[in-house]
Amino acid sequence: MTTIGIRGAFFDFIDDPWKHIGAEHEAARFHADGLLVIDDGKIVDFGLYDHLSERHRGLEITTIRDRLILPGFIDGHIHFPQTRVLGAFGQQLLPWLQVWVFPEELKYRDRDYAREAAGRFFDALLAAGTTTCQTFTTSSPVSTEELFEESERRNMRIIAGLTGIDRKAPAEMLNAPEGFYNESKRLIERYHRSGRSLYAITPRFAYGASSELLAACERLKREHPDCWVNTHISENPSEIRGVLADHGDCTDYLGVYEKYGLVGPKFSGGHGVWLSDDEFRRLSKSGGALTFCPCSNLFLGSGLFRLGRATDPQARVRLSWGTDIGGGNRFSLLHALEEGYKVGMCNNTLLDGSIDPTRQDLAEAERNKVSPYRGFWSITLGGAQGLYIDDLVGNFQPGKEADFVVLDWNGGQAAQAWHQSLVVEKEGPQTMEQVANLLFGIMMVGDDRAVDETWIMGKRLYKKG
Amino acid sequence: MTTIGIRGAFFDFIDDPWKHIGAEHEAARFHADGLLVIDDGKIVDFGLYDHLSERHRGLEITTIRDRLILPGFIDGHIHFPQTRVLGAFGQQLLPWLQVWVFPEELKYRDRDYAREAAGRFFDALLAAGTTTCQTFTTSSPVSTEELFEESERRNMRIIAGLTGIDRKAPAEMLNAPEGFYNESKRLIERYHRSGRSLYAITPRFAYGASSELLAACERLKREHPDCWVNTHISENPSEIRGVLADHGDCTDYLGVYEKYGLVGPKFSGGHGVWLSDDEFRRLSKSGGALTFCPCSNLFLGSGLFRLGRATDPQARVRLSWGTDIGGGNRFSLLHALEEGYKVGMCNNTLLDGSIDPTRQDLAEAERNKVSPYRGFWSITLGGAQGLYIDDLVGNFQPGKEADFVVLDWNGGQAAQAWHQSLVVEKEGPQTMEQVANLLFGIMMVGDDRAVDETWIMGKRLYKKG
Repeated sequence: MTTIGIRGAFFDFIDDPWKHIGAEHEAARFHADGLLVIDDGKIVDFGLYDHLSERHRGLEITTIRDRLILPGFIDGHIHFPQTRVLGAFGQQLLPWLQVWVFPEELKYRDRDYAREAAGRFFDALLAAGTTTCQTFTTSSPVSTEELFEESERRNMRIIAGLTGIDRKAPAEMLNAPEGFYNESKRLIERYHRSGRSLYAITPRFAYGASSELLAACERLKREHPDCWVNTHISENPSEIRGVLADHGDCTDYLGVYEKYGLVGPKFSGGHGVWLSDDEFRRLSKSGGALTFCPCSNLFLGSGLFRLGRATDPQARVRLSWGTDIGGGNRFSLLHALEEGYKVGMCNNTLLDGSIDPTRQDLAEAERNKVSPYRGFWSITLGGAQGLYIDDLVGNFQPGKEADFVVLDWNGGQAAQAWHQSLVVEKEGPQTMEQVANLLFGIMMVGDDRAVDETWIMGKRLYKKG
Repeated sequence: MTTIGIRGAFFDFIDDPWKHIGAEHEAARFHADGLLVIDDGKIVDFGLYDHLSERHRGLEITTIRDRLILPGFIDGHIHFPQTRVLGAFGQQLLPWLQVWVFPEELKYRDRDYAREAAGRFFDALLAAGTTTCQTFTTSSPVSTEELFEESERRNMRIIAGLTGIDRKAPAEMLNAPEGFYNESKRLIERYHRSGRSLYAITPRFAYGASSELLAACERLKREHPDCWVNTHISENPSEIRGVLADHGDCTDYLGVYEKYGLVGPKFSGGHGVWLSDDEFRRLSKSGGALTFCPCSNLFLGSGLFRLGRATDPQARVRLSWGTDIGGGNRFSLLHALEEGYKVGMCNNTLLDGSIDPTRQDLAEAERNKVSPYRGFWSITLGGAQGLYIDDLVGNFQPGKEADFVVLDWNGGQAAQAWHQSLVVEKEGPQTMEQVANLLFGIMMVGDDRAVDETWIMGKRLYKKG
């Protein structure tokens, strides 16, 4: 058991900026000269260096200069077995799955391929500053095992599960519901809460699930209520039609998951682009969450997620944000913030009354603006809350696990440094407002080159080359 | 006068891929082992190395391995004086101009600031592989002069002009129409066709132009018909309302520019997001062009440009593509291709009948898909055609100027190389299809890190550090 200290400029959140409209800084915390004390991978103290150093005499301190230290980024929706096939050309969701994705995922029945891929997957996450993800695997348990084995080697907190599908995919990919139930049970017993691993019962999506498969998921959740549930919802119009055709007794997409008792705390539905206002309200009430994947929603042409609706204080829906690799084309959640900002601004114009005065909703229009506070909260503490893991990660509260990312605000395209010099010159940021402006520069003008180091449980696992 | 040869893998276009639906490769040309012969900055021969080497014995040859060599990228719409203020937070077009852009542009009345900025601007372009741009300056001639001085030092082909505005901006920014006319005339005489410089008569936009200012532009164009005309059109709904309120005798945005005789060959209107079908048809007929700026259209929430409508063979509109720095947040035209692909896919879903069967148009839906052929044509030969400079640049035809970019298909995020290994392993690409797949990987999974070298008139001006 070793105690270490990290000294530097820290920025994290203690509340949701959407609750502080006009005063978002109240949700954040900035220590220009802070100290993070880590014991055996967990945070035991955090505050201003000048306040804390007295009571931690003799502490071995690593000083990180000219950087911003943030909690590690949390990706709420990603597909491990699409690591290689990200950015595939030319199709919306359904044909894209058939043409590009399913053939690639079938390779993950091979243990060697799955193992190599798992290594590359976590390398890509760490280089992007992502320290936690909730990920899909494939319908083959081999892929789920190799994923968890690799995350345990790196001691990373992840949520994952065998990904069930029993229709509308190649025959060799389909799970029999009973087999899916048995394999899931075995994997839950082996991996759930082993080390930092958490298990999600994972029906891929209602579009590819029979009633029997969903009933198997219901049984799993009843028998393992501590487990998560991860799936997709309302991503693409054609998909939604297919779901309603198959599950004729349900009036909407959310209704299918409700019918099988899956919606509630620890439930994540990826996308939700086409959810009705009623579905938003029911989700809000249930405690279930959505995952916003702007990069993927644009890449597959799925549509513009109604971020301002999801963040309606009257019916607030828990949200995490995801890259959705390989529907998303970049591993960096900074890119998800960039694309989320753009989706939000398009919504802003649609709602400001300039196109259709009858649809004007200025409060919803405003909630669509992804400020740096809203953005970085969403991929740290907000993401942790969306995934119900904010007791474990998401900010620098003592008791939490010491996963963090070290950002160089000048990293990125050639124009980056001169842009950022509008905010700070040689000295680092001294005020919250400067930090916010630098962070907006990182998410909109910078990119993953801003990620200089990534630390897991107080150990540095990535340093930019 | 020195003759040099570049040996490597070359890819360029000889036709418009939108004219070859289902067989886009017919519009392209690939030499896995090619030779480009350059004399005094101009291309004098181009073809397969084995065919050409015989007739160029003793030629000093630079061999470029493991790379793809493409014509330099052409940015049809960019704002030089927004180099530093790109990616500014939180506003649609009109307030964004007031809050962020006009204050920055006012700094360019200072010659030292403008000179420093010009250096940084061209550094950023070259690092992005952009060899030609059509750029706005400010309402101060100082900025226009410093821009042209710097481009001439680098011997780059650009189109630019003093950018006139006489309303709806800070008083110290406004041009008097007569002053604008006189200064433009002086600058045309000094810079137009001096070296590689070309002059564009540049009313900023109808929103900020009185009838008198537009009449001054009309007079300039009549007196200097060889000059270009560069402006904005139909970017944002609120802007459009303002234009129609000010120019009450015009029924639409395009009509304002038509009234002053500005629309025709060498006319570029940036954006055109909200153009009517009728405006598309009139533009097509006139020979005037639009510039598609997808990154900016998303960043400012302007909307989804109807790419499939602009490329309707019945009323094809000339197009260049632009980054629109600083409404766009990245200098790299690869990023414009990424965002253009996403805009196109969103349009594809809106037009495929899955949302509204009455709006179904499958042909237009398909024309929205930005394949690698369509994309890279758009930022090379297509962009040159859009700007009426395809007699000078855009591909490797002998007689043209030798501006080119050297691409490393593995440059980008950590996941890039494994993704590209789906296409080629150790050997470089041997077939057109492999090239197209690598290029799609560059535009969607890679980024400006793919730009390894940028050459201007046969001289290497940029090498990735």
